[in-house]
Amino acid sequence: MCLANHLNQIEENRIIEGWIHTFSRDPHQVNKPHEADAELISLPGTDQLIALSIDTISEEIGLGFYQDPHTIGWMGATVTLSDLAAVGARAAGLLISVTLPENSNVEFQLGIAAGVNDACSRAGTHVIGGDTNFGATASITTSGIGFVNRHRVLSRIGCQPGDKLYATGSLGSGGLVAAKALWENECDTYLKAFRPLARLTESQIIRQFASACMDSSDGLIATLDQLCRLNQVGFELDRPVDEILDPDALQFCSALDLDPLLMLAQPHGEFELVFTIPAGEQATFKRHAKKQNIGFLLLGEVISKPMIHLLYPESRTIESGRIRNLLHKVDGNFQRYLEELIRILEGPYSDMAAD
Amino acid sequence: MCLANHLNQIEENRIIEGWIHTFSRDPHQVNKPHEADAELISLPGTDQLIALSIDTISEEIGLGFYQDPHTIGWMGATVTLSDLAAVGARAAGLLISVTLPENSNVEFQLGIAAGVNDACSRAGTHVIGGDTNFGATASITTSGIGFVNRHRVLSRIGCQPGDKLYATGSLGSGGLVAAKALWENECDTYLKAFRPLARLTESQIIRQFASACMDSSDGLIATLDQLCRLNQVGFELDRPVDEILDPDALQFCSALDLDPLLMLAQPHGEFELVFTIPAGEQATFKRHAKKQNIGFLLLGEVISKPMIHLLYPESRTIESGRIRNLLHKVDGNFQRYLEELIRILEGPYSDMAAD
Repeated sequence: MCLANHLNQIEENRIIEGWIHTFSRDPHQVNKPHEADAELISLPGTDQLIALSIDTISEEIGLGFYQDPHTIGWMGATVTLSDLAAVGARAAGLLISVTLPENSNVEFQLGIAAGVNDACSRAGTHVIGGDTNFGATASITTSGIGFVNRHRVLSRIGCQPGDKLYATGSLGSGGLVAAKALWENECDTYLKAFRPLARLTESQIIRQFASACMDSSDGLIATLDQLCRLNQVGFELDRPVDEILDPDALQFCSALDLDPLLMLAQPHGEFELVFTIPAGEQATFKRHAKKQNIGFLLLGEVISKPMIHLLYPESRTIESGRIRNLLHKVDGNFQRYLEELIRILEGPYSDMAAD
Repeated sequence: MCLANHLNQIEENRIIEGWIHTFSRDPHQVNKPHEADAELISLPGTDQLIALSIDTISEEIGLGFYQDPHTIGWMGATVTLSDLAAVGARAAGLLISVTLPENSNVEFQLGIAAGVNDACSRAGTHVIGGDTNFGATASITTSGIGFVNRHRVLSRIGCQPGDKLYATGSLGSGGLVAAKALWENECDTYLKAFRPLARLTESQIIRQFASACMDSSDGLIATLDQLCRLNQVGFELDRPVDEILDPDALQFCSALDLDPLLMLAQPHGEFELVFTIPAGEQATFKRHAKKQNIGFLLLGEVISKPMIHLLYPESRTIESGRIRNLLHKVDGNFQRYLEELIRILEGPYSDMAAD
């Protein structure tokens, strides 16, 4: 069974479909469901689109990945700003809604606020408003607004066999966060140094050349799997894993003798942009990137067969559908998730589809 | 002590101030903190403003006020659409982020979706995107976007002594929800009939005439208290309470021999717009409203002394600051809140300020 045309093999997509079928469609909305990381509505009388996104961080707090309030605030802002970057938008502002535990103190509140503000400042944007609530556990929801020219908007749709596959930076640092939290109980120390940036600057170059783009907020493998299903193509990663993996993640895997793919296959990603450049545009793209002193990482290329295929260290195909449904299958138990994921990565390849 | 210039006597305002001081200010933002129910940013090259709002519903679910999923969805949409109405904006779309309890079933999810969609349809707008998460308890965050002409925008600022005070409908049905939930344990039955509407249509008339506007999402007394503090004015309610109170709320109070003010003083409001019309504009406003077959309820008028004063059934002044801080003082215990509120309303008037 192939990935193409089987969006609904993925539990997350099925949930989204259920919601979408309940909603009437906005005639001003430009993108269809699943097509882009942010929603796009036309701004009548102009050639601009408004990009809008919303995201909540709650599981990561509940699982103990994010404990320190500055991390919670930073990640809350970044997850939404990254969605704006993935459609090529300039960020125009962020709204936040924070649920605080009843027993939280002022330092906790202001720590979250500082984290949000620092991530916004780095992204050249601002918090324009918000809301606070009290509840059983902490969570943060952010909603972002941005603008993008309708002729230069990025979406997840459009890559074709032969296009080159890139990322804005090394991958796997997101997976490392989860692994450290569960196996070393020192995630918070690590996270205080881990401050992924929404790739808003990079996306202004990418949007001039890319055929498709999506952020790696759910990890590289989930991102590629979704792009496969949406575009009816596959991806071949033709670079050794140690050239694309985050150095800390690589070292962690070496020390514990773990398959480095474990860092790329987890649903906690690192907010890089993963994008494709048509072969004919590659030279111009690279020249522009170099001129602006922005580095990109070549991962491989788009292939016609709907699969995620690795050439190094040996030729293998990733059971990406099975991996994406795994967290749901283990009822959100992340410890079991990691154990099962190791088993899937070790085992013989069975089927690309979800089981 | 008077209300004017003492925004920070109110715990909620103090929390907001703490956040605001942490955030850098967006140069495109038109409104200052507290000035409007929605945030307003300029749309360069046009005379339009973008109105943005975000709100989370979690306490109401935790307290058991909202149990049925359709109610949760409806109220989630309405709370944000009402903010857009309060600045005179046309709604252009809604984003939602829903946190589902781990054990929730598909019916619960789709019930929320249907509630959101029904509220949006009634408001003539659409859901444009969203996000789902899993957590310990259910909550819903919505973010709304709308447009409003910069010369016809409504804010909380601008009312002056002599202006007439109006609401878009009878008040107290929101307070009744909380009272029924805690005293009769039948709130859900009542809520299935309680479907407050965001007053988007009405606000298109109001914005042509009003000097100030704010929604009653936190109840009438909190709304008036905030308007007092922001405008350095007071309000005199010169209509008998039974003429402004929701009929169900009035009947409930009569049956239990409760002060009807109890329904207006609670922080769970009913999403009417509360607004002021300069005396000179009253006749034209009324003519326009009549022509469009929209009724408004006259509550009283703006006075210079910073107080909330009632003429019926007897002349009395409401300790609005003390009431607004009460929920915080009892650590969110709503049962205790209602008991204390009854005591405050029964007791002699002591001081307008918070204690």
